[in-house]
Amino acid sequence: MEKALNYIENNKERFLSELFELLRIPSVSAQSEHKPDMKTCAEWLAAALVKAGADHAEVMPTEGNPVVFAERIIDPNAKTVMVYGHYDVMPVDPVDEWNTSPFEPEIRDGRIWCRGADDDKGQLFMHAKAFEAMCATETLPCNVKFLLEGEEEIGSPSLYKFCADNKEMLRADIILVSDTSMISMETPSITVGLRGLTYMEVEVTGPDKDLHSGLFGGAVANPANVLTRLVASLIDERGHVTIPGFYDDVRILSDEERRAFNETPFDEEAYKRSLDIDEVAGEEGFTTIERTGIRPSLDVNGIWGGYTEEGTKTVIPSKASAKISMRLVPDQDYKKIGELFERHFRAIAPKSVKVSVKFLHGGIPYVAPTDMPAYKAAEKAIVASFGKTPIPFYSGGSIPIISGFEQILGIKSLLIGFGLAEDAIHSPNESYGLNQFYKGLETIPLFYKYFAEK
Amino acid sequence: MEKALNYIENNKERFLSELFELLRIPSVSAQSEHKPDMKTCAEWLAAALVKAGADHAEVMPTEGNPVVFAERIIDPNAKTVMVYGHYDVMPVDPVDEWNTSPFEPEIRDGRIWCRGADDDKGQLFMHAKAFEAMCATETLPCNVKFLLEGEEEIGSPSLYKFCADNKEMLRADIILVSDTSMISMETPSITVGLRGLTYMEVEVTGPDKDLHSGLFGGAVANPANVLTRLVASLIDERGHVTIPGFYDDVRILSDEERRAFNETPFDEEAYKRSLDIDEVAGEEGFTTIERTGIRPSLDVNGIWGGYTEEGTKTVIPSKASAKISMRLVPDQDYKKIGELFERHFRAIAPKSVKVSVKFLHGGIPYVAPTDMPAYKAAEKAIVASFGKTPIPFYSGGSIPIISGFEQILGIKSLLIGFGLAEDAIHSPNESYGLNQFYKGLETIPLFYKYFAEK
Repeated sequence: MEKALNYIENNKERFLSELFELLRIPSVSAQSEHKPDMKTCAEWLAAALVKAGADHAEVMPTEGNPVVFAERIIDPNAKTVMVYGHYDVMPVDPVDEWNTSPFEPEIRDGRIWCRGADDDKGQLFMHAKAFEAMCATETLPCNVKFLLEGEEEIGSPSLYKFCADNKEMLRADIILVSDTSMISMETPSITVGLRGLTYMEVEVTGPDKDLHSGLFGGAVANPANVLTRLVASLIDERGHVTIPGFYDDVRILSDEERRAFNETPFDEEAYKRSLDIDEVAGEEGFTTIERTGIRPSLDVNGIWGGYTEEGTKTVIPSKASAKISMRLVPDQDYKKIGELFERHFRAIAPKSVKVSVKFLHGGIPYVAPTDMPAYKAAEKAIVASFGKTPIPFYSGGSIPIISGFEQILGIKSLLIGFGLAEDAIHSPNESYGLNQFYKGLETIPLFYKYFAEK
Repeated sequence: MEKALNYIENNKERFLSELFELLRIPSVSAQSEHKPDMKTCAEWLAAALVKAGADHAEVMPTEGNPVVFAERIIDPNAKTVMVYGHYDVMPVDPVDEWNTSPFEPEIRDGRIWCRGADDDKGQLFMHAKAFEAMCATETLPCNVKFLLEGEEEIGSPSLYKFCADNKEMLRADIILVSDTSMISMETPSITVGLRGLTYMEVEVTGPDKDLHSGLFGGAVANPANVLTRLVASLIDERGHVTIPGFYDDVRILSDEERRAFNETPFDEEAYKRSLDIDEVAGEEGFTTIERTGIRPSLDVNGIWGGYTEEGTKTVIPSKASAKISMRLVPDQDYKKIGELFERHFRAIAPKSVKVSVKFLHGGIPYVAPTDMPAYKAAEKAIVASFGKTPIPFYSGGSIPIISGFEQILGIKSLLIGFGLAEDAIHSPNESYGLNQFYKGLETIPLFYKYFAEK
């Protein structure tokens, strides 16, 4: 692997300038105006993978954004690693809060600043370049497939069918994913748990038009007031979600398991400082890492209604809406949770308004075993590159398709991400440390080496 | 008055085309981008009043938008009527819901469709044209002053000082105002009560940046969730405002007064149909007309936070905000209510967030006597034009400056408005019936005639 690592060292600058080309493509999957950018991005990646050493690469259509598939088969009897990543990114709103243009990458303070710098263009590109290094130095010890999608941030709606339709093409021994974070560069970790997700949108309608709040105020249900009441009631004073049946399938850890779980190093004071908050908040009786690791949650992701511009407007809005998502843990089912949510929300709405409830997307939780060969290989690779044994870590985030892979393809995933909390993914001013990028590049070939060993 | 009414009849079409010129000026006081339009509008009105017959008209600067003052003095010993109106209009958002361009007036179904068609350009223009008719036919029986401001929709912040600085210029026996509605064309009414107003804006801040709702969801206070909880708690299940001290100064009507008050004709089924709602809602133990006439209320006029665009974004917003206004009744004080609101809102906020509370504007409630000469004159004028005795009516709306006039100038106001609920003022698709416009034009000279009589 020395050769591959030397190759990386000698080509670092070029890798960065190539990554910048990828980052400049504004591939926001949530917004239909960016549809053409999705295709551009997929084609760019397919070409890049062929240049890196793939036998062939294809941009494959789906009902949504295309999938990029590439492979290099060195030996039908060798192990096969399939790299999964996503080339779509989150919207950039609120755009005013970015210090630099969201799609113009810039290096500052040792970090790459751009939407997608970490999530997931920066991380998937490490895999493309590690692959190139192994191909160029003839040290690639496994067959490699790349499966890159353009809809992860909207719940991978097309990838389930794509997997079902292409099972043979997608055969592999392990799916390798860098779309998660480590605890810190000093405390490397491998993600072994992901939460599931149910993402809903609700709309409350009162009168059929906006009304003068003086002439009608106090006599007609105001949908914005009603919405606050309905949404507020979804969580009680103890931080519990009040939807009947919500906790029915939550796996309860034994006291011993909880003790082990809480051994993960966590500095609550540093956590609060990094977010500029005076107090953490959440479900009573659980620690902060339990609240994101093993407990479900419910968050308003967006809320809007009435007059939201400068100054005042004395209006009772006709409608008010909210986007509400729930993070789920084993063994909650995202479809069942969506149904429970909808039934409950309709039930608590007063007769003075009409409500609509839409399911936007969802995914089931995932727990990875720590005794599989890929985990062991990743552990050894990280020990070699970071000098420390990685900690198995439960992330609060979701990558719904990971469970889908297991269900449809029967393949487990290894979540070896090099992100950090400070990367501010999904937020304005996303960034990715150059040290994270290079450390990832260094670790990946080591993973291949240890994984290929008998 | 026959001559004046004939003049009106013969000039109806021209009046409309002049009104359209006025309506086309987008004089939105809440939005600073429209600053130049305010001046244009004031200058247009001053010129129009001179053409109508004023001895002189002036655009007088204030710290905010200019005031238009005009007068015609026929005899220092005659009675003086001062017409008050406002040339500023409400914002047009949500602009998508307009069927035609908000500032391009159009006649359809016997109505003028445009922002300001009723509130208040259409209504104040009736006064300008009734004045013109009386001047042109030499039938004007009173001195007339016009006081037209450009900040009514934002709480008349400059007009209080303007009145205090110009007391002598503004001397009059009555202030005549058409900025209110009638119950219906079949049930004419004169507004004798206006609610006061306290308009606040609150902002809840959690983490210092938007966060990934998976990585942090359940462990950090989400300001959008907290905002819904705080706002929802401001009204209890019985429809009572929960702010301590809120009801302390509310004037309680005797049983007899309430019985009399509830004799106002009101068709609740028609009311619900006109708003497309299944049930009215409000404070327990009060009728709909009591809820808007003699009881205070609290409404969310706008709420916003997080991702509000198409699709999904899994984010915990850093901030969430709401605009909240309260309608007040005698003897509530808008400043005191603002202070009570702020103290309460800060007190109920959890330590996991920071809140800011801003007072945006306010005004005190107003009750007009029904035994003053101007009321009697208006009653006779309406009997003559509508064929029915008008009902004294408590509007839920607010014109804060009306109380200001009484306090600063010592002059009472007569609220003779020709609006209707269906005019949808403050809403998309504001309109004003041609019959309302013409009925107003017919009634106003009659008012002058009866008011001038000893």
